[in-house]
Amino acid sequence: MAAFDTVIHNGTVATASDTFKADVAIKQGRIVGIGEALTDADEIVDATGLLVLPGGIDSHVHISQPSGPGIVMADDFESATRAAAFGGNTFVMPYCLQEKGQPLRAALKDYHALADRACYIDHSFHLIIADPSDSVLGQELPALVADGYSSLKIFMTYEGLALSDYEILGVLQVAREQGALVQIHAENYDAIRFLTDRLERAGKIAPYYHGQSRPIAVEREATHRAISLAELIDVPIVIVHVSNREAMEEIRRAQMRGLKIHGETCPQYLVLTEDDMQGLNMEGAKYVCSPPPRDHASQEACWEGLQQGVFSLFSSDHCPFRYDDEAGKLTPKGRTSFRWVPNGIPGVETRLPILFSEGVGKGRITLNQFVAFTATNHAKTYGLKNKGSIAIGYDADIALWDPNKTARISQAGLHHGSDYTPYEGIEITGWPVATMLRGKFVVRDGQLLGAKGDGRYVTRGKPGAVA
Amino acid sequence: MAAFDTVIHNGTVATASDTFKADVAIKQGRIVGIGEALTDADEIVDATGLLVLPGGIDSHVHISQPSGPGIVMADDFESATRAAAFGGNTFVMPYCLQEKGQPLRAALKDYHALADRACYIDHSFHLIIADPSDSVLGQELPALVADGYSSLKIFMTYEGLALSDYEILGVLQVAREQGALVQIHAENYDAIRFLTDRLERAGKIAPYYHGQSRPIAVEREATHRAISLAELIDVPIVIVHVSNREAMEEIRRAQMRGLKIHGETCPQYLVLTEDDMQGLNMEGAKYVCSPPPRDHASQEACWEGLQQGVFSLFSSDHCPFRYDDEAGKLTPKGRTSFRWVPNGIPGVETRLPILFSEGVGKGRITLNQFVAFTATNHAKTYGLKNKGSIAIGYDADIALWDPNKTARISQAGLHHGSDYTPYEGIEITGWPVATMLRGKFVVRDGQLLGAKGDGRYVTRGKPGAVA
Amino acid sequence: MAAFDTVIHNGTVATASDTFKADVAIKQGRIVGIGEALTDADEIVDATGLLVLPGGIDSHVHISQPSGPGIVMADDFESATRAAAFGGNTFVMPYCLQEKGQPLRAALKDYHALADRACYIDHSFHLIIADPSDSVLGQELPALVADGYSSLKIFMTYEGLALSDYEILGVLQVAREQGALVQIHAENYDAIRFLTDRLERAGKIAPYYHGQSRPIAVEREATHRAISLAELIDVPIVIVHVSNREAMEEIRRAQMRGLKIHGETCPQYLVLTEDDMQGLNMEGAKYVCSPPPRDHASQEACWEGLQQGVFSLFSSDHCPFRYDDEAGKLTPKGRTSFRWVPNGIPGVETRLPILFSEGVGKGRITLNQFVAFTATNHAKTYGLKNKGSIAIGYDADIALWDPNKTARISQAGLHHGSDYTPYEGIEITGWPVATMLRGKFVVRDGQLLGAKGDGRYVTRGKPGAVA
Amino acid sequence: MAAFDTVIHNGTVATASDTFKADVAIKQGRIVGIGEALTDADEIVDATGLLVLPGGIDSHVHISQPSGPGIVMADDFESATRAAAFGGNTFVMPYCLQEKGQPLRAALKDYHALADRACYIDHSFHLIIADPSDSVLGQELPALVADGYSSLKIFMTYEGLALSDYEILGVLQVAREQGALVQIHAENYDAIRFLTDRLERAGKIAPYYHGQSRPIAVEREATHRAISLAELIDVPIVIVHVSNREAMEEIRRAQMRGLKIHGETCPQYLVLTEDDMQGLNMEGAKYVCSPPPRDHASQEACWEGLQQGVFSLFSSDHCPFRYDDEAGKLTPKGRTSFRWVPNGIPGVETRLPILFSEGVGKGRITLNQFVAFTATNHAKTYGLKNKGSIAIGYDADIALWDPNKTARISQAGLHHGSDYTPYEGIEITGWPVATMLRGKFVVRDGQLLGAKGDGRYVTRGKPGAVA
Repeated sequence: MAAFDTVIHNGTVATASDTFKADVAIKQGRIVGIGEALTDADEIVDATGLLVLPGGIDSHVHISQPSGPGIVMADDFESATRAAAFGGNTFVMPYCLQEKGQPLRAALKDYHALADRACYIDHSFHLIIADPSDSVLGQELPALVADGYSSLKIFMTYEGLALSDYEILGVLQVAREQGALVQIHAENYDAIRFLTDRLERAGKIAPYYHGQSRPIAVEREATHRAISLAELIDVPIVIVHVSNREAMEEIRRAQMRGLKIHGETCPQYLVLTEDDMQGLNMEGAKYVCSPPPRDHASQEACWEGLQQGVFSLFSSDHCPFRYDDEAGKLTPKGRTSFRWVPNGIPGVETRLPILFSEGVGKGRITLNQFVAFTATNHAKTYGLKNKGSIAIGYDADIALWDPNKTARISQAGLHHGSDYTPYEGIEITGWPVATMLRGKFVVRDGQLLGAKGDGRYVTRGKPGAVA
Repeated sequence: MAAFDTVIHNGTVATASDTFKADVAIKQGRIVGIGEALTDADEIVDATGLLVLPGGIDSHVHISQPSGPGIVMADDFESATRAAAFGGNTFVMPYCLQEKGQPLRAALKDYHALADRACYIDHSFHLIIADPSDSVLGQELPALVADGYSSLKIFMTYEGLALSDYEILGVLQVAREQGALVQIHAENYDAIRFLTDRLERAGKIAPYYHGQSRPIAVEREATHRAISLAELIDVPIVIVHVSNREAMEEIRRAQMRGLKIHGETCPQYLVLTEDDMQGLNMEGAKYVCSPPPRDHASQEACWEGLQQGVFSLFSSDHCPFRYDDEAGKLTPKGRTSFRWVPNGIPGVETRLPILFSEGVGKGRITLNQFVAFTATNHAKTYGLKNKGSIAIGYDADIALWDPNKTARISQAGLHHGSDYTPYEGIEITGWPVATMLRGKFVVRDGQLLGAKGDGRYVTRGKPGAVA
Repeated sequence: MAAFDTVIHNGTVATASDTFKADVAIKQGRIVGIGEALTDADEIVDATGLLVLPGGIDSHVHISQPSGPGIVMADDFESATRAAAFGGNTFVMPYCLQEKGQPLRAALKDYHALADRACYIDHSFHLIIADPSDSVLGQELPALVADGYSSLKIFMTYEGLALSDYEILGVLQVAREQGALVQIHAENYDAIRFLTDRLERAGKIAPYYHGQSRPIAVEREATHRAISLAELIDVPIVIVHVSNREAMEEIRRAQMRGLKIHGETCPQYLVLTEDDMQGLNMEGAKYVCSPPPRDHASQEACWEGLQQGVFSLFSSDHCPFRYDDEAGKLTPKGRTSFRWVPNGIPGVETRLPILFSEGVGKGRITLNQFVAFTATNHAKTYGLKNKGSIAIGYDADIALWDPNKTARISQAGLHHGSDYTPYEGIEITGWPVATMLRGKFVVRDGQLLGAKGDGRYVTRGKPGAVA
Repeated sequence: MAAFDTVIHNGTVATASDTFKADVAIKQGRIVGIGEALTDADEIVDATGLLVLPGGIDSHVHISQPSGPGIVMADDFESATRAAAFGGNTFVMPYCLQEKGQPLRAALKDYHALADRACYIDHSFHLIIADPSDSVLGQELPALVADGYSSLKIFMTYEGLALSDYEILGVLQVAREQGALVQIHAENYDAIRFLTDRLERAGKIAPYYHGQSRPIAVEREATHRAISLAELIDVPIVIVHVSNREAMEEIRRAQMRGLKIHGETCPQYLVLTEDDMQGLNMEGAKYVCSPPPRDHASQEACWEGLQQGVFSLFSSDHCPFRYDDEAGKLTPKGRTSFRWVPNGIPGVETRLPILFSEGVGKGRITLNQFVAFTATNHAKTYGLKNKGSIAIGYDADIALWDPNKTARISQAGLHHGSDYTPYEGIEITGWPVATMLRGKFVVRDGQLLGAKGDGRYVTRGKPGAVA
């Protein structure tokens, strides 16, 4: 019997700190050896000229999540995780959305039912707390956090989701007591409503006005408020999908005061701008997400946030809708006003290539930072054991990258459920040519080798620090 | 007939910029001459050794304003304006409080009725917008601002007063369109409620916990939010009663970005601390106001705010209650929890001596800054014509100060309706020995010479810049 | 005999804080009355429609000061003070330049000899300390400061003038002990030399490269260093002619820490840019001064410095040379390299109209700020008694302004000794139509009424705070 | 023949990003395998319960370096590297000091002669540029950098070492052109001289006044200046031995502007204060180093600098002298004035335990940060290939740590040439129990197993980024 099931041979391994040539030996789905000349394996994968990176962990994706009456997302767990695998990911963290009045356990049951036996890669849920009732805060959450549901998400905007500051404090208090980590979507709902009403009264309803309805100050204000509420409770939080300098600087100011505020940004804030929402007819709706893409100075600020360590997480905020659909999902709603355009864009498959090409390729970040922002830091932040790095004992969740492969992003080449990509036409250098989940290829050379249900649900430990 | 009714002779005049020896001539209540050797007057007032300053303008006082069910303030317009006059003031700006559902005109009618023929000094109302209904915003306010009610106040805290961010934006929008200036009480109501609930559950109900229920972050958060909302509408605002460095720095950051944010601080933030709320039994309740007094570092920050021009206004936030009262005002409520202690302390009579003694006397600010902070800037900020300085054509609203007179603040020597002063025992050097309203002494050498009703209501013009 | 020599009738008086209609009465050169209907005068000057402002005080002008071997300035005291008077000024503060090895008394004797009976307006010297020997620091300076020479200037750049940090500390130490105020020209001499050498080696010698030889970081560095040295000695200083945001922010940071750092800016930093040095042939030399004009963002920063109180002084840094001259002053030297272009531009006559038109006229500053920046603050900062405002007992140094008069700045209309103005062609609204020195017109309606020698030397008291 | 020479078995490996259980296999001095159950080795080292960390790299040590006339350091290369090895280090970077007029090659020859066959661990020189003559800058440096002497050091203070800003710019220009990295000792020499002179005149000559002679502003100023000079040349630098918040914040401000400024701090700034220089008689001299230890707030700032990534390097600044010595090294000089106390303290052996115990042990930093600050970042910053981490192909420079071993630092237990340690008495938890250089134990269980001369000189590649 061979010592190893598989050896990835002659590639260049990169972790969040180091880069070196090595063979990687896998047995029973785990990395058991990193070394020179590891040959005693059932299968030798030639990685000459390739990078051997931990598989991407995308801790911010929305799958099969209701998005208003009649609005169905374009991806279910099958299509979303398949697309993620093609994009070099081995782990996603979608949301389990509680509905008003619904027990969390009931919501989890629903989402588990959707995800079970449907996923190509591993996954774990964040719990969206839409209804922080006494029973949710006092009974359900402590039990669920103990069961490994150790991250929550709350919203400061969206009808039916936005919590009051009083409710937010209640959730944060429980998070502190139970050791859970809370993600916060930071935009001021009242301000958005006010500006939306004003724009609509002025007849400004095209998708472009989505951006005008939630300007930077709206996000900065909520970011500062979220941080203040976390400060009152003395609990870490994650400010997700930061889009601009002002919000970034609020997070930095908090970090400088010693507060444990994690920052996340996303591809749309690095390569899109509000002008993309200016398309003919409703084309602009393809780029509608919240916070909206801003301008080039904001893109630069988000790069600085990554380079200077203000942001430790880079996620997709994958939230896929179809632009055109006989069943009338996006377009019909969009016809009346930007207000009714479902917020969110697909991105789970393109996140890694965009950051690799624009970041590593263009010298903005190092390869080690890439690994940290896309895998290692997610695992550390959200309490994922034995994932997110190339290290002994870790799950053999590995992406093989050809750093020189060029490609142009196009809908035709993607595997998600949306009928478009907002990143259409972007030229990429560097692409994940194979994705391996716990030692087994899910995708290799553009072929899907994995099977539905190969992906497992993973319960997590206590969230931790990145450094 | 003499050329002048009165000449104030041989004093040292100070304006917000200059200090010089001069006689000041008055005719028909107005300053008509400033010069050397002005002698042709019916009355010559010898001001040798005295400072001749514009009478104090206190733009933040609460008089006869309901403060919760059954809570009656300790001052009516008569007692409050009498106390103000004894404290060197010639103008106060109390609030007209709209009740929920009440038209502003109706509220104004009530307050005018209370103030008419009751005041010893001139006055003008700020309108508290507690119910920004469509008719208030769309019809009443435009008309009232045009009528000279050009300043509004809104609250981010207090049950029944706190406006939502949506409502605040509505008020600010009208203020921008009509040219009104909005004062904002910036504390996060939800956070206060949450912390109060938590303190009460822990049995921490003594007056001292009032401070713990609204820590600095609560004020800083609301300050940043208020500024953000004003920024969205692009309209100036006044952040009133700033108590600490963090809130002060938020204002400074906004000013540095070019936003027109006025800052105000008050005596309680210069000379009291939260430890004053630590008294035996309910004695601490005497110091309960909102925001609460903080610590010595915060006092230093408030001085810096004045010295460095972040604050342009120094007001009393006079909000008088009785500590002990047979009718059961303060004490009975206070017996159960700090939550029910009426917020507010008396201070209209002591504001000027405290700032003079601690500020000018101790070299922290100049005499000219004193004049600016206590009179000139209030007139400019709130659109008071011909008041707030010693200048030709201005109302002869003058305070004569003996800069060397020493006194110890004590309840026995004061004239307000409260049965205590939170400033008891503070040693003062510099005291207003006479107050003249439009050329006529209201108070002189400790004697009340004015009469109820001498004070007039003043309508105002457009608010303006201080510089 | 009339009560007054002169009354300026029916104008609008403005001080650093107030604006009001009044007559101003003058007797024996002093303002003795401000009032309504002052008529008992030998002469009534009709100021209807005019502003009655304190005469400009320009605390930063170079006159008859050697500027390198063979380089003679374009103005002597006669021409410079005449030009200043035409520009609405009643006081200038030129420099007395010590030469290496020269006793200060000897330098003063020379400069007094040049100024005596030559000036149209009042004046007082700053002492440039070029050689801080033991006798200068230990003996001469204490005596001279006591004699009213209470301001010094030192340079961090220029061959023969630049002091070492050790020497600067020595001067600051004496200033602290004697109560003198030190102006500092803050640019890093070594950096300028290094960059100049590098530019010259690259053949980049046109006037435009003057700006490249002293970029913003060179000024910011020296500003921070000057502040640090003052901080070590704990003494106030003036950072003169600040040209950009970075240096301005260094001053602000120091002020925020409570240090008494005065900031000054000049017209060239509000209306010129480095592109002006791009002229054909040597035309760019007309704009060569140090620090150099920067860019539009820097202009905006300098406006903010004034608006937000970081700068309290607005001076001309008048330093006049001729562009073309048979005697070969500017051009011949300029032919070889920007290194040899004498640094400095004329501006004493245009300072006030530029700030009035661009500042007050365009709503960037108030009329009261204009008065403060151009007169009052100079008097306070440099210890000038009874000058710099319209107040009783003050010298009747007054400029009458027609706020609506339009003009286009042109060399033909100016009175300085230069053969060009860097401000050629700028459209101005608001012009000083008459200048009165101690009650007597120097200039009126474009006519020179004063005489050489009317201007007196003024000894000064202790420097003071502006606020 | 066994597959491996040595296997370190069953320890916990930590890199700058990851921590995991693994065996580490070594062959011919290199790490060739990291895995589970690696057993085929000539020697199995049991590391159960131990941490397997990369050996410490100390990039800031002074050895055998003249320190003024007659002053000889207490360590030669033998004793210093032996002490370093006992302290868990496998690499030191001492200085090669150029003397005035000396060619760099000549200095290198001298230092190589001292180090050759004398060292227990590997090493590489930084070149101190004391005389940046044309030949040094134009000829020697380009050749030496190409030869792998890729880091320089310059001083802004010390007689005979301090370079002028002009000279600094010249060195930085060459560094930019050749790709070298420049360390800068940032203190203002003139200010120190001035303050020292003033203190001496006041009779304040005890060691304690060493700190008073170089207050924080002296270091902050030079830090800002060094950054400004680097900014002018656009080249990365290292600000070494940062001692306080103000200097730290200057570095952070620069990093925030995108400048590549590396920051370093040292043990003395984390655990000593200026009060330590207050000892009886000359005892305070034991703590005299530059910059001096500050206060507890400064210690906190230095921790924040590490935690928040402003500092990426933690070095000892080992600079050993004897306190008492018959040959009269320290004490005789010290008898007259702090001015003559040689600057510097020993620390190469205690650096790692102090940071481990105070940092990792007390929860201020993670184990991975410890590895980064003490090894990985040094290798990356200074271009050391294949050192500084536990990775395949890297030199087997390894320290085995017992994280639970407690010790009290005492001179008796140390191996340096000084006759005292400034860290006497500090309680430590966590100690390096063995140090392995390229696969061979230098120190194990307190025994010296290595031999003089085992340490090699290492030439380096281009300096790099840490991230």
